[in-house]
Amino acid sequence: MLKAKRIVVIGGSAAGPKAAAKARRLDENAEITIIQREKELSMASCGYPYFVGGFFDDRNMLLCTPTGVVRDPIYYMNAKNIQARTNTEALAIDRVKKTVLIKNLATSKSETIPYDRLILATGAVPNIPPVPSGDLQGITTLQRMQDADFLRRVRDEKKIKKAVVIGGGLIGIETCEALQLAGIDITVIELLPQLLTFLDWEMAELVENHVRSKGVNVITGNGLAAFLGEGGHLTGVKLANGTELPCELAVVAIGVRPNSKLAQEAGLAIGEKRGLLVNEFMQTSDPDIYAAGDCLEIENRITGKRNHAPYGDLANLEGRVAGENAVLGNVATFPGTIQTGICKIFDFKAGTTGLNERSAAQAGFNVLTVINASLDKPGFMNGKLLISKMIVDKADGRILGAQVVGPGDVSRQIAQWAMAVMGKMHVEDVVNADLPYAPPFSLAIDHFIATAHLMQNKIKGRLKGITAIEVKEKIDKKVPLYLLDARGPDEFESMRLGVGEHLIPLGALRKRLGEIPADKEAEIICFCKISLRGYEAALVLEANGWKNVKVMEGGIVAWPYPRER
Amino acid sequence: MLKAKRIVVIGGSAAGPKAAAKARRLDENAEITIIQREKELSMASCGYPYFVGGFFDDRNMLLCTPTGVVRDPIYYMNAKNIQARTNTEALAIDRVKKTVLIKNLATSKSETIPYDRLILATGAVPNIPPVPSGDLQGITTLQRMQDADFLRRVRDEKKIKKAVVIGGGLIGIETCEALQLAGIDITVIELLPQLLTFLDWEMAELVENHVRSKGVNVITGNGLAAFLGEGGHLTGVKLANGTELPCELAVVAIGVRPNSKLAQEAGLAIGEKRGLLVNEFMQTSDPDIYAAGDCLEIENRITGKRNHAPYGDLANLEGRVAGENAVLGNVATFPGTIQTGICKIFDFKAGTTGLNERSAAQAGFNVLTVINASLDKPGFMNGKLLISKMIVDKADGRILGAQVVGPGDVSRQIAQWAMAVMGKMHVEDVVNADLPYAPPFSLAIDHFIATAHLMQNKIKGRLKGITAIEVKEKIDKKVPLYLLDARGPDEFESMRLGVGEHLIPLGALRKRLGEIPADKEAEIICFCKISLRGYEAALVLEANGWKNVKVMEGGIVAWPYPRER
Repeated sequence: MLKAKRIVVIGGSAAGPKAAAKARRLDENAEITIIQREKELSMASCGYPYFVGGFFDDRNMLLCTPTGVVRDPIYYMNAKNIQARTNTEALAIDRVKKTVLIKNLATSKSETIPYDRLILATGAVPNIPPVPSGDLQGITTLQRMQDADFLRRVRDEKKIKKAVVIGGGLIGIETCEALQLAGIDITVIELLPQLLTFLDWEMAELVENHVRSKGVNVITGNGLAAFLGEGGHLTGVKLANGTELPCELAVVAIGVRPNSKLAQEAGLAIGEKRGLLVNEFMQTSDPDIYAAGDCLEIENRITGKRNHAPYGDLANLEGRVAGENAVLGNVATFPGTIQTGICKIFDFKAGTTGLNERSAAQAGFNVLTVINASLDKPGFMNGKLLISKMIVDKADGRILGAQVVGPGDVSRQIAQWAMAVMGKMHVEDVVNADLPYAPPFSLAIDHFIATAHLMQNKIKGRLKGITAIEVKEKIDKKVPLYLLDARGPDEFESMRLGVGEHLIPLGALRKRLGEIPADKEAEIICFCKISLRGYEAALVLEANGWKNVKVMEGGIVAWPYPRER
Repeated sequence: MLKAKRIVVIGGSAAGPKAAAKARRLDENAEITIIQREKELSMASCGYPYFVGGFFDDRNMLLCTPTGVVRDPIYYMNAKNIQARTNTEALAIDRVKKTVLIKNLATSKSETIPYDRLILATGAVPNIPPVPSGDLQGITTLQRMQDADFLRRVRDEKKIKKAVVIGGGLIGIETCEALQLAGIDITVIELLPQLLTFLDWEMAELVENHVRSKGVNVITGNGLAAFLGEGGHLTGVKLANGTELPCELAVVAIGVRPNSKLAQEAGLAIGEKRGLLVNEFMQTSDPDIYAAGDCLEIENRITGKRNHAPYGDLANLEGRVAGENAVLGNVATFPGTIQTGICKIFDFKAGTTGLNERSAAQAGFNVLTVINASLDKPGFMNGKLLISKMIVDKADGRILGAQVVGPGDVSRQIAQWAMAVMGKMHVEDVVNADLPYAPPFSLAIDHFIATAHLMQNKIKGRLKGITAIEVKEKIDKKVPLYLLDARGPDEFESMRLGVGEHLIPLGALRKRLGEIPADKEAEIICFCKISLRGYEAALVLEANGWKNVKVMEGGIVAWPYPRER
């Protein structure tokens, strides 16, 4: 019998345990060890904001199997015959001797352990603002289990009244919701001009408006200048523009970067984004060392460029591939990411897949976009709004990406777009998609398909769209425009842009053509609540000889600016 | 200027109005007429069961636009310049003269109207059991708006205590839920051995068990023999096996067939399933006549065979294509169906896409299947169960179809499978899918991906699965088996099969191998709640020399038979 293979996994959060478990399933005889610096193992770290926000109260739910068994070293030994060494830090890798120097953080004892195959799953570390914190109490991240425990105590103790979240990305926004649900006054500060940079600006504005509607103060385009403190406690933050915000708590959430120090010191290849470089087999520049999870840079499946994609789902999938190949040699491949993401933001959800307009343009695509707004299911089934932006390659209609926001079922929408992007589908491949329809689940023509219909109409030259951003620019520049709102008077009373638009209900338009500018070259922009009636109004005007008629995509509900009503 | 094109659409439910609206958008000058036998237009007929079930109270919600305007002839004239003639039946088509003979059902006046292009959207008619009803009151279908109104009155009046639903298909099951929610004692009768024949038997049983758990009486494998009545009122039904069920209401829901009489009398080509035949342009055998919706037979995109696919979503998409081609000539195509469907059944949902095991085998595929059970999202986010069956072509792993049932988010799952089937994807294309993950929406490894992982493990020979049906057959035939339940004692106490299984928790298995049959050729079947621990147990046994070890797919939650607990 061959000597048992020794597999050492460094990192015990998501990718590491997955790789270890996969390796065990493929080799019952291997000696498998997980080295984990933290006290906990297999933490559902994406669940921290929901624990803090009070969606559940038992912290063990973040650590246990679906049947309630905590995934501690005893569990790993009994259920999987894996030795999990927690509170243990990996200090150095000797690639020649094939050993790892580890240190027990409780006893401070060091030890050298041998490996035949090493799997690095060292994760990511939070970025820290370039501002001294002076060791003030009340400044934290939400990265580790102990951070979650701390913020949960903040929630339970109800002492803190005001907090600042520094960073308006995914974790920042989830933390903002969690703390707001804890009854704390929240200000979110973002250096960039928008929240959630995976979204294009006008989509992010819709999210920002929703966040504000929940009583959260949002400050964009402004960075942190200093933490203010007294007696060792945080008392406020100062912004780049001089504003001072009193607060007792600051959560720093300005992104993460690959934790690649150990690998770098061992001489493994590191990429431009400071992540470990691996081939399609999850193999590093050392053939005996594999890697998975947030410590990597991985390839974008559309652009072919490497980027840092620290997502929990990818970490698991990468871990599975790394674990398989560590045991069997390079038999399994990982295709990279299309950077699909989703988050819940109070009653909204926001998701993305593939490229957004900015990243697609940066990647050199000639981009065509469309915005669509509709309910997710019929009104009689309490349908909720969805607003989508679809991005295709103008050259051939290939679907490059999509973003969806709103209170509706964003999850299914993004899942559909992700499958379309991965399937390298084109507009024509999805306009007649056969998707699950029944009133409790979708409209008869699902929002996804309707979005593709708009794009098809645009490509065929039937829908001449104009974005809200372009319309606003024209209004601000006082370009002569005739803005036509095709809704009914009641709707106009309860909600309207108030930018000088003229109300002519679609049903009356054919009889009231005399009110439209007589000049057939005049620029006319039609819209309604979601711009379906706006589209029909534009077609009526075009058929009656007006030559410069456009439809404002997404209508009033996708207008990213303040409305009159 | 050319003479305006005259477009006549026969049928005013889903496909017809969609075709008319699309035609209008493409030709502002066309004369467009809809001929509709019913009083209503554009009814959301898929919503009838939810109106009856009390999900909403205002019947106009079934008839109105998202902004609350009822789609009546005035609406069609004002908003779309379409003449909608309701209460009007099309009696005959003269294809030589290009006219339609119509009759106003209110005035009984007939009239002949000319067309340049005709679009047939005559829908479907319900199948009627071959049993005389003797004009008894209390027998209905749920096909027309007036049926919905009648059943809603039944709900509101609260007089009827017992009802029978004849037919356990999609409409039957939706009607069953609606009437049960109305407080009526329900029995569902189905001639075939299972409900919801779009599912394979073992999946349908899971649904049936849920329906029974709601207090509904389900009788399968038994047909209707007679309606029983007294004084002109229904008093009960008699079944083929002699059983008499007293009831005051019977809803007949034994499917629909294409309403192709008018087309057939006009000499248009009709298929084997009695549906109109159209080409990819939705054009009938007469080039000036298009057709769309439930009156058609359309091609299955996987098998290439034509079938009747009376789904509201397809009707709309077909109508859009027919409307476009009627105006512009044959520029748009419709690719057919993969027969995706979904329904809500109390707290369960059941969905399908592509081929099921039966239809795939009938189509000549060498089929490989796998069943997977897991939560849809983490337990700490109140995740709910999903049970999926995936069907692939053994030859190359092409995904042929999937079925999903359970209380979890079936909609997203089926949407993902549908996209995979339409994208002609293979197992290897989805095992590393980049789908939207965050705890409020899915597991880190989405159920869809995990299902594909099981299939991949099966294809690679690592997971030796056995179905619950096969296990039950072996138990019934007293085949010597060692059944190993790998869960914990508490779980075993609260739920178990009770078929002679041995409880050895996975965590204790390596130390208790002495309890396993000494004969290394003995047939051993491992399982747990969802058969993940069962899978790991099987791997442990195989690594220790047992040669005939299988995993019961889906575990206890997918067991379609009664359990001991």
